[in-house]
This record gives sequence, C-alpha cells and structure tokens, in this order.
Amino acid sequence: MTYTLSTTIDAPFDDVVPVVTTALQDEGFGILSEIDVTTTVKKKLDVDINQYQILGACNPPLAHEGLVEEPELGALLPCNVIVYETEEGNVVVSAVDPQQLLSLADNPALDSIGDDVFGRFERVISTVDDELETVSEA
Amino acid sequence: MTYTLSTTIDAPFDDVVPVVTTALQDEGFGILSEIDVTTTVKKKLDVDINQYQILGACNPPLAHEGLVEEPELGALLPCNVIVYETEEGNVVVSAVDPQQLLSLADNPALDSIGDDVFGRFERVISTVDDELETVSEA
Repeated sequence: MTYTLSTTIDAPFDDVVPVVTTALQDEGFGILSEIDVTTTVKKKLDVDINQYQILGACNPPLAHEGLVEEPELGALLPCNVIVYETEEGNVVVSAVDPQQLLSLADNPALDSIGDDVFGRFERVISTVDDELETVSEA
Repeated sequence: MTYTLSTTIDAPFDDVVPVVTTALQDEGFGILSEIDVTTTVKKKLDVDINQYQILGACNPPLAHEGLVEEPELGALLPCNVIVYETEEGNVVVSAVDPQQLLSLADNPALDSIGDDVFGRFERVISTVDDELETVSEA
C-alpha cells in the first residue's frame, strides 16, 4: 500500500515544478507553503541532496468545510505535493493520498472531502503525465 | 483515538504563538512554514473565522534521516503544530501525533524517528502548559 499518488517524469526538475503548480491551480488548489528541502538540508546540516521541494496545496472551500467539521484537521493540512529528483536523474511528482491522510481523523464527515481531493489529485497527476514525458516502467 | 498531542490554554492567541515557537526551537524544531488560516479563508472565501495558525515544524537531522530511509516521506512533512481560538475564547495548541502520521508510510525504519519526535512534542506541550495558564477539564 502506498500513501501517495505518483508519477515519474523524464524532464529537468525546474521544468516540472511550474507544470505541477499550474495543474494544481486548475483543480482549485493554491500553494500555501513551499519548502525547499535541498536548501534547508544544506543550510542546517551542510549536506548535499538532490533537488526536493514540498508544495503545500490547499483548496480553500474544501479546507474550510473540513475545519468546520473537525477543528483539529489543520494538523493534517495542507495536502502536500512533493517534487524531487531521483538518483537516476528522473523527477518524481507525488501527492499525498488525501483519503489515507484524513483517515487518521476517523471522522466520516470528512469522507466526501477526501474523495473529492483524491479525484482532483488524480487529475493533477494525469495532467503532469500528459504535459511531460513520463518514465515507462520496465 | 486522537491524532494530536494537545492542550487548551486560557491566554490571548497572540501570547501563545511565541511560547509555542520557542518551545519548539528548544526541542530542535525550526518553523519551515507558517500558514495563517484566518487570513487565507477571509481572502479566498470572504468568511470570518477565529484565529487559526498552522506551524510546519521540522527537526532537520530527523527529517533528513527519514528522507534517506523513505524518499516519499516529504509528502507527510513537516509535522504541523496548530494554534487556534475556540468558540469559548480559549486557545488550543495541538501537535500532530508523529507516530500516527508516520504509520501511513508503514516502514519500520521510521519507527525510531516517530518515537523521538513524539517525545519532543510531548515536552513542547508540557512546556506550553507550564508557561501559560491551562484550562482545567470540568
């Protein structure tokens, strides 16, 4: 079992992030946080790692609906979409599986929100696949 | 079952956030993202909600160790600490339970990291309790 919706792209890292951001916007997600893991790890630990970015994606109406149902839900938000380089030089795009993430809250009132976000993330990954060259599984 | 470590404080919201931030720093967490949910909801939906902030807390050595074990882990990071006002005018401080969050990855190599962060978050909540007036349960 995996906890992300994912695809692997054969394109430069810097070309992938804007495509992901636009695909998220087209599904109603704003980016509320952008964490440059590579720079953080270099600055704090003086360790070099491949490019790695965490985008905190938020669909405001769905997030608000969730917080009304469950005030603690912010502990699990926003839903992350990560973009990172692999050792092989490809780029992975992975969105957290919102159904699994929300399952931690064990609140049936959140099920429809999780389903809705899941569908949107599926379309985001599909759009990224369509717009960039994917790496076919061997 | 709950997915947060939490306490409820009888103090103004603006007094609580700096105490939480300092307590996190003392346990080795930097704040990588700060999301002002109240402002975002107002701006995007024109809806007024109580003060609500999401702090993305990251302990760089532990995060790096986790990412080496599990590249996809960034989909679940950073660990959030939320601070929000209740209808009764109190302030809740809740840290996501890192053991439950990491359980989504189902990777035993992450267990010790989850245990470590759990202990740190317990001490953060305890420090917040010590420094501010808590609301006793009726």
